[in-house]
Amino acid sequence: RMLDQTDERLSQQLAFLTEIDKLKSVLRATTLCDGSRRENTGEHSWHIAMYALILAEHAKSPVNIDRVIKMLLIHDIVEIDAGDKPIHGSHDIAEMEAIEQAAADRIFGLLPEDQRKELRALWEEFEAAESDDAIFAKSVDRVQPVIANLETGGDSWLEYNVSRQQLEDRVGWKVAKGAPALWQHLQARIRNWFGARAE
Amino acid sequence: RMLDQTDERLSQQLAFLTEIDKLKSVLRATTLCDGSRRENTGEHSWHIAMYALILAEHAKSPVNIDRVIKMLLIHDIVEIDAGDKPIHGSHDIAEMEAIEQAAADRIFGLLPEDQRKELRALWEEFEAAESDDAIFAKSVDRVQPVIANLETGGDSWLEYNVSRQQLEDRVGWKVAKGAPALWQHLQARIRNWFGARAE
Ligand SMILES: [Ca+2]
Repeated sequence: RMLDQTDERLSQQLAFLTEIDKLKSVLRATTLCDGSRRENTGEHSWHIAMYALILAEHAKSPVNIDRVIKMLLIHDIVEIDAGDKPIHGSHDIAEMEAIEQAAADRIFGLLPEDQRKELRALWEEFEAAESDDAIFAKSVDRVQPVIANLETGGDSWLEYNVSRQQLEDRVGWKVAKGAPALWQHLQARIRNWFGARAE
Repeated sequence: RMLDQTDERLSQQLAFLTEIDKLKSVLRATTLCDGSRRENTGEHSWHIAMYALILAEHAKSPVNIDRVIKMLLIHDIVEIDAGDKPIHGSHDIAEMEAIEQAAADRIFGLLPEDQRKELRALWEEFEAAESDDAIFAKSVDRVQPVIANLETGGDSWLEYNVSRQQLEDRVGWKVAKGAPALWQHLQARIRNWFGARAE
C-alpha cells in the first residue's frame, strides 16, 4: 500500500534518529571526569544540556532556556561527518566550515522539510553565536571541558600543552561573555592548576 | 572570604553537574545501532530527548515538549546509584523503588533547594507515568531500545530471549499509550523480526 503521510513522516524521522546514533561513536579530546576514557559527543550533548538547565540563572542576558536546550541537543550533530575539532587543536577554518555545512545538509536533510528548516536554523544560530541564547549556549559548551580538566588533573590541557593565556584566549572570554559569574567562580581553581604546574 | 550567594549556588550546581558525569559510565542492556558496544545512560538520555523533540507531533495527547525534554534529560539520573534495570530482566520492584528514592534524595540533594524541588518533582512525575507529558516521555524511552534491536538484528532481545508477546506486554502497550502511530508504524518490522526467528 502507499505510505500515508504519518507513515512517511515517521519513516523520515526514524531514519534521522537512527542516523544520529552515530554521534555516540564520535570521540572528543576531553575525558570523563574520572579520567577513565574519552568522552563521546552524544553523552557530551546530554551533559551540556544539563549544564544549561542548571546554570541558566547565571546567563549574562536572560535566555529562553527551552531554546538553549534544543540548540545544545543538536549543536554537534554535524560531527557525525565532520568529526570533533578540539578547541586547542589547529584547523583550517574555511575548510572545516564547508565540511560542517555539507554535513548539516545531509543529516538535517533526512528530516521532513518543516523540521529540517527549524533545526538547521537553530544550528546556524548556534554557530553564529550572536543571539543571547546562542552566546549562553556557547558558554556552557566551552566550560564543561574546563571542569572535566579540573576534575581529571588537566588531561586534555596536558595533551595539548595548553597555557593559561591560551585557555583565556580560546575558552575563557567565550564562557565569560555568556556567563560571567561562572567564569569568575572558576578562577581560583584554574589559577591553582596552572600555578602548581609552573612551580 | 565568605562565599557570597552566587558562589554558594555555583558550588552546589557544579557539584551536581560533576556528579552526574557518572551517568556516562552506567551501561544499559541495549547496544548502539551498529552493535559495536553497549549504550550508556548518558548518551541514551540525549538520544531520547532527541526522540521526543522529533516525534512530539505523534503524542496521543498534546504535550509540553519543553517539559518532556527536561523530564527525559533527568529521568535516569538515579541510575548512578541504582544501576540500569533492563526492561526484560526481573527485579524486586519494591526494593528497586527504595533504592531509586534514596538515589534521588542524594543526587538531587546536591542542588540548591529550589532546583532540588523542581527536578525531584519532574522525576516523580515521570515515574508516576500519569500526566500526558510523562506518558509520552515513557513511550519514547521505551521505543528507542526497540529500534536499536531492529537495527542490530535483535541484540538484547536474543540475550534476554524475548518473545513477541513479552515485547507487547512490557514495551508495546507503553509505547502505544503515549504515541499510538509510532507503535503502529513499527509493527511490520517487528513482525518480520519475530517471524523470521520462528521459522
Ligand atoms: Ca531510560
